[in-house]
Amino acid sequence: MTVALDPAAQDLLFREAHTAHTFADEPVSDEQMREVYEMVKYAPTAFNQSPLRITLVRSPEARARLVQHMSEGNRPKTSGAPLTAVLSVDLEFHERLPELLPRAPGLKDTFFAEAETREAHGTFNATLQAGYFILGIRAAGLAAGPMSGFDRDGVDKEFFGDGKQKSLLVVNIGKPGEDAYRPRSPRLPYEDVCTTL
Amino acid sequence: MTVALDPAAQDLLFREAHTAHTFADEPVSDEQMREVYEMVKYAPTAFNQSPLRITLVRSPEARARLVQHMSEGNRPKTSGAPLTAVLSVDLEFHERLPELLPRAPGLKDTFFAEAETREAHGTFNATLQAGYFILGIRAAGLAAGPMSGFDRDGVDKEFFGDGKQKSLLVVNIGKPGEDAYRPRSPRLPYEDVCTTL
Repeated sequence: MTVALDPAAQDLLFREAHTAHTFADEPVSDEQMREVYEMVKYAPTAFNQSPLRITLVRSPEARARLVQHMSEGNRPKTSGAPLTAVLSVDLEFHERLPELLPRAPGLKDTFFAEAETREAHGTFNATLQAGYFILGIRAAGLAAGPMSGFDRDGVDKEFFGDGKQKSLLVVNIGKPGEDAYRPRSPRLPYEDVCTTL
Repeated sequence: MTVALDPAAQDLLFREAHTAHTFADEPVSDEQMREVYEMVKYAPTAFNQSPLRITLVRSPEARARLVQHMSEGNRPKTSGAPLTAVLSVDLEFHERLPELLPRAPGLKDTFFAEAETREAHGTFNATLQAGYFILGIRAAGLAAGPMSGFDRDGVDKEFFGDGKQKSLLVVNIGKPGEDAYRPRSPRLPYEDVCTTL
């Protein structure tokens, strides 16, 4: 094995990590989420555009607002998680580019001036960041339960009424509860995914 | 610090890792890429759809075919990298669902029967996997140089002539060369990215 990452870390992030479907009754603090963010913020986006935004749904009121927009199969686990993150793309991420990309501040008013360009690039890069975030949750010793099954327009109207963000993924976060994991599903063999030219 | 991942691993994946813009003259083997894949394949996708495909561009002939479609600023570093991965979405990922998701093999012919649905879901999930892949490269002790600046249609015609895959991201892979890294650009503060409700 030539991988630099030690085997325990490989297990924590990849090999032994599973999507959790139930959660223990143990809180996840904002401080833990800050530690996750302070790690994953360094992972790359194009032009350092950093378009991901994270809405941490914790209070019973906010949770009720979210759960009604989840698909039926995702409601019990979302209700039962101590914390749920709504990951979204900031469609006006370009406003921060002058500070995020000091070597090319002009991109804000040239390449990223068009809303359509921003939405395409922002969505792609925020989705890369969603991948980093899921692994960051695991790095914190927590289980992640990412879910695509929700009413995107409903969530957007509920939480992003100003139209400046669009939801991408909802992620339950916590310590795994009873019977949290499904059996591991098969993965594709290397030869079917990777081709060398 | 309550993060479970040890500080050296945090540095390797996030804190000390940088996008590389030059590469050392040292090969990256298929065996190394296999080790990366055997780790990152476990990270989650919706319904375990696993739509990411990885084309490893190594030979001088394949490299020349790729470089012509890169934006001008990305050509020298792509030419100079020992290995470059074209990350793409398999638009027919649903064909593998019966083996990937034994608990719901019917999704292939219901939810994922429509090409438009497949492209939207496949692109999103393959992009999550692209995020995992970038961190997997770093986990292997290699530097990644992800690039969005390329002619997507050109790459697709060149490498995916059957129309069954669409390119998402091109990633140079290798040991960093001289002056490989730009100074770290600023990141957004926690308060500007994360909101607790």
